[in-house]
Amino acid sequence: MRIAVLLYDRFTALDAVGPYEILGRIPGAEVVFTAARRGPVRSDLGSLALTADAALDEVTAPDVLLVPGGPGTAGVLADGAVLDWIRDVDAATTWTASVCSGSLLLAAAGLLGGRRATTHWIALEQLAALGAAATGEERVVVDGKYATAAGVSAGIDLALELTGRIAGDRTAQAVQLVVEYQPRPPYDAGSTATAPASLVASLRASSLDVGPAVAAG
Amino acid sequence: MRIAVLLYDRFTALDAVGPYEILGRIPGAEVVFTAARRGPVRSDLGSLALTADAALDEVTAPDVLLVPGGPGTAGVLADGAVLDWIRDVDAATTWTASVCSGSLLLAAAGLLGGRRATTHWIALEQLAALGAAATGEERVVVDGKYATAAGVSAGIDLALELTGRIAGDRTAQAVQLVVEYQPRPPYDAGSTATAPASLVASLRASSLDVGPAVAAG
Repeated sequence: MRIAVLLYDRFTALDAVGPYEILGRIPGAEVVFTAARRGPVRSDLGSLALTADAALDEVTAPDVLLVPGGPGTAGVLADGAVLDWIRDVDAATTWTASVCSGSLLLAAAGLLGGRRATTHWIALEQLAALGAAATGEERVVVDGKYATAAGVSAGIDLALELTGRIAGDRTAQAVQLVVEYQPRPPYDAGSTATAPASLVASLRASSLDVGPAVAAG
Repeated sequence: MRIAVLLYDRFTALDAVGPYEILGRIPGAEVVFTAARRGPVRSDLGSLALTADAALDEVTAPDVLLVPGGPGTAGVLADGAVLDWIRDVDAATTWTASVCSGSLLLAAAGLLGGRRATTHWIALEQLAALGAAATGEERVVVDGKYATAAGVSAGIDLALELTGRIAGDRTAQAVQLVVEYQPRPPYDAGSTATAPASLVASLRASSLDVGPAVAAG
């Protein structure tokens, strides 16, 4: 099973690496990180670079496409070539998935029209504006072959869900145990429903940029 | 605040990138990925490479040291130079932290003698054999300035804990909300206490390698 993970300048690293660590452990998985050009691609914080081992035109028919989010989605939206690639490879995928504001790219490529989908909590309106039936109620949304996750860390939950559907519950559970995914956050502030209201308001008013027209995540 | 993340061949990617995504968002954080030599470093699954932007001898006094785990720990244990570097920079850190079998390296460097510490569930005996007071009861263990996490994904919880201690609860909660860390795993198999017993036994009998003398994770 061939899995392609899209990289672009200023992607959010955990959006890509969280799901990678899960999906890459499915027996028979062959993962390729791909970007417009081969070589290192910097994430949004500037201090991390992941290597794209293949250029987009070398990756033509992945079974699974994973699109991370990040502030760099704005640049991709202005780059028809990457959106064209997403649309082209989607034609043959079994699963097309996104994390965080990566769903904005799927939507802009015309893949989410009318479909239920999610994104980072701060980008839900943008996702709706791009034609998707955006929902912030679920952490992972599956509509047909399109699987979208909420912000950043939600990609791990998405990947376990996909692993179960691709390889069965037992394999998914084995991977969960290998990566010891028994989360115990020391705070309960991971969603707008549980974080202090003043914090949510403060971030909404900030330059938090997860994609176009908003300014982190 | 300078944060150094150690890389070495066959590290586990999420061990490094999970905490990075949290700690790197602390205001004023300056993160550097470092390895024996500058350049791309491949993780255990082979399909991911992170760039080391500095060689070890260029990183002399980080405030925070983060050591990920992975099958490659076996090679590091046989490489006195990396252990020497860990010991040297630890002398000036405020926090020295590890994820997964990364704690085996801290222990081998002589930093965990008699200290309470944890590691991946499959490596607890090895950690004890290296002189630490190994415990599998807690996902994150803090003893003095040494913070150690259980397997792979536990580094996210560790990093939130450290963020709170370094920058205060509100900053940690803000980062948690930005990365939307409200985990909802679709299975309850992330620990040996909750996974099906047959699965635990199967993985114990397998070549699961998180470090020396065991064979994944």
